[in-house]
Amino acid sequence: MRVIIIGTGLIGTSIALALREQGSAVWLTDRDPAAARLAADLGAGTLLPENNDDPADVAVIAVPPAAVAATLAAAQARQLARSYTDVASVKQLPVNQARERGCDLTGYVPGHPLAGREKHGPAAARADLFLGRTWALCPLPETSAEATQAVMTMVRACGAVPVRTEPAAHDRWVALISHAPHVVAAAMAARLEQAPAEALDLAGQGLRDVTRIAAGDTALWTQILSANAAPVAEVLAAVAGDLAEAARVLAESDDPEKAMAALLDHGQAGVDRIPGKHGGAAREFAVVQVVISDQPGELARLFQATGAAGVNIEDVRIEHSPGLPVGVAELSVRPAEADVLLIALEEGGWVTGPARR
Amino acid sequence: MRVIIIGTGLIGTSIALALREQGSAVWLTDRDPAAARLAADLGAGTLLPENNDDPADVAVIAVPPAAVAATLAAAQARQLARSYTDVASVKQLPVNQARERGCDLTGYVPGHPLAGREKHGPAAARADLFLGRTWALCPLPETSAEATQAVMTMVRACGAVPVRTEPAAHDRWVALISHAPHVVAAAMAARLEQAPAEALDLAGQGLRDVTRIAAGDTALWTQILSANAAPVAEVLAAVAGDLAEAARVLAESDDPEKAMAALLDHGQAGVDRIPGKHGGAAREFAVVQVVISDQPGELARLFQATGAAGVNIEDVRIEHSPGLPVGVAELSVRPAEADVLLIALEEGGWVTGPARR
Repeated sequence: MRVIIIGTGLIGTSIALALREQGSAVWLTDRDPAAARLAADLGAGTLLPENNDDPADVAVIAVPPAAVAATLAAAQARQLARSYTDVASVKQLPVNQARERGCDLTGYVPGHPLAGREKHGPAAARADLFLGRTWALCPLPETSAEATQAVMTMVRACGAVPVRTEPAAHDRWVALISHAPHVVAAAMAARLEQAPAEALDLAGQGLRDVTRIAAGDTALWTQILSANAAPVAEVLAAVAGDLAEAARVLAESDDPEKAMAALLDHGQAGVDRIPGKHGGAAREFAVVQVVISDQPGELARLFQATGAAGVNIEDVRIEHSPGLPVGVAELSVRPAEADVLLIALEEGGWVTGPARR
Repeated sequence: MRVIIIGTGLIGTSIALALREQGSAVWLTDRDPAAARLAADLGAGTLLPENNDDPADVAVIAVPPAAVAATLAAAQARQLARSYTDVASVKQLPVNQARERGCDLTGYVPGHPLAGREKHGPAAARADLFLGRTWALCPLPETSAEATQAVMTMVRACGAVPVRTEPAAHDRWVALISHAPHVVAAAMAARLEQAPAEALDLAGQGLRDVTRIAAGDTALWTQILSANAAPVAEVLAAVAGDLAEAARVLAESDDPEKAMAALLDHGQAGVDRIPGKHGGAAREFAVVQVVISDQPGELARLFQATGAAGVNIEDVRIEHSPGLPVGVAELSVRPAEADVLLIALEEGGWVTGPARR
């Protein structure tokens, strides 16, 4: 596959690195020549020649949302590729602008890889950034089947899972799962700006996780949020309402426990719905806990036992401290199989904990 | 050092494991005998005999905030230890209650380790939970120097850094860096409860991080928030105000960029103030990625291969998208063993990704 990356920031360079690992030929260009050179030095590909006259299979437009349409128009004028995609976090804005500019939409497959880091620039790029991640593709009514196919092939080559949708739904969905969470993280982090240093010295992993994405590129995120203003505003207003009510109840009520428990329960139910870690909703599986020793072959022995019991392990996590001689393997199985597994393991001499269902 | 752990949940069992690594003698008790037994099976110590007549150096009261004072009174009545500490996330409430109950405050050093996980129970415990973390200690005017010294020694033995403060300041600080972030995470996560499944399929690491702590124990957190209501309410009201204003600007303003950039900049400045935000201790393990199919026996086959290579797997995570026939197993190994493992797996026909070190 022959691919041109236009814009060698975090995402563009990560795509290039992923494709290079799969043996694709990759050319790089950026309006900042130093960024393109750095990406090339990192092994992401070759600098795109000024007078390129051999169209690539796909050109990836990895520039901020508001620059996508102009960049697409310029690339199509140069006939850089047969198919084009972009990676902007909003889809309605670039699609509308490309249509207004009269871009050739038959070759354009709007896209958005759901992956990122709080760092930016080519040096932060990683070939595995997209591994197992979803990548939204929004082929337009005008888009040709060939273009969609070419871009899908490229997405899969990056290790990602293409998900087809359309621009308006995409923008509503990412407002909820990406854009609003960014603002929420920023609003929480903003409270730390004037906090006493002694308070911040006590900060644990929870605060770091809640606020991590607020370290992202302000200029890029401002553009993203403005380009998806109405759907983001709707989510933020709802979160603000819940938080204002929680503040009111805590400040004024003699018995805030019921109201707080309700909000926390809704939050827990929401977290439970995020797929991924357990290959589906977490609560679909029972978790069987087994004490294991920290030595080579122990996991093989455990999985031989589970295989012999005829039970499929959907997920496994190992909880143990470095250096500690024993740990706990948490095996996720279908609820109906939990007891079969527990009995088989106990008969085999394994020490098991209570199953969580 | 001789220590009694009263309450073998996540925190109590983790303290026990940490102290055992340092060679301390640890006794365990819990109002749920199964929890104490599981902790003992994990190597956290010995079950506390009913008729213990040899006082320990320190008894750690690792129970929810509202139960601390009663547990302290009962432990002092049994003369279980010379010094006592607790681990509750709020300090004014248990201190006031202990004073009202007439507990002996000369031997009591209120404490709070700033560490935790979204999981609970003894199986989630880790000996390294406190490594490099701060641990607030709030000796009272009545507390003896000997008690403070004994508890500080225990805190340091857990690998934590004791920070002296007083109950009111502690409670204001943790409202900001722990309690309010928990509610903010819950309010964001609550928006996911009714979200379309397609939207959640697009969720990336950012959403998981922002909402992770909202998976915590609702009953415990409800108690914590109610016990620290006024300071938490103050922070939440400010966050709610910023979010409501952001929603208003996005919904109504023709040019929301300036206002959004200001909020994001304050957020970034806040994140910058969190000490050690880049992880503190460097990653101890290399992560080897292996593509696996979703079928019975696949993990057994993988762990047979790792066992045959003589490589010990320190941790394993499985990342796969719902319904997708393949996933990625991330195997954590000692950095020096990563290449050995990669070569062995590739020779065995496994598809591997780049190692992260």
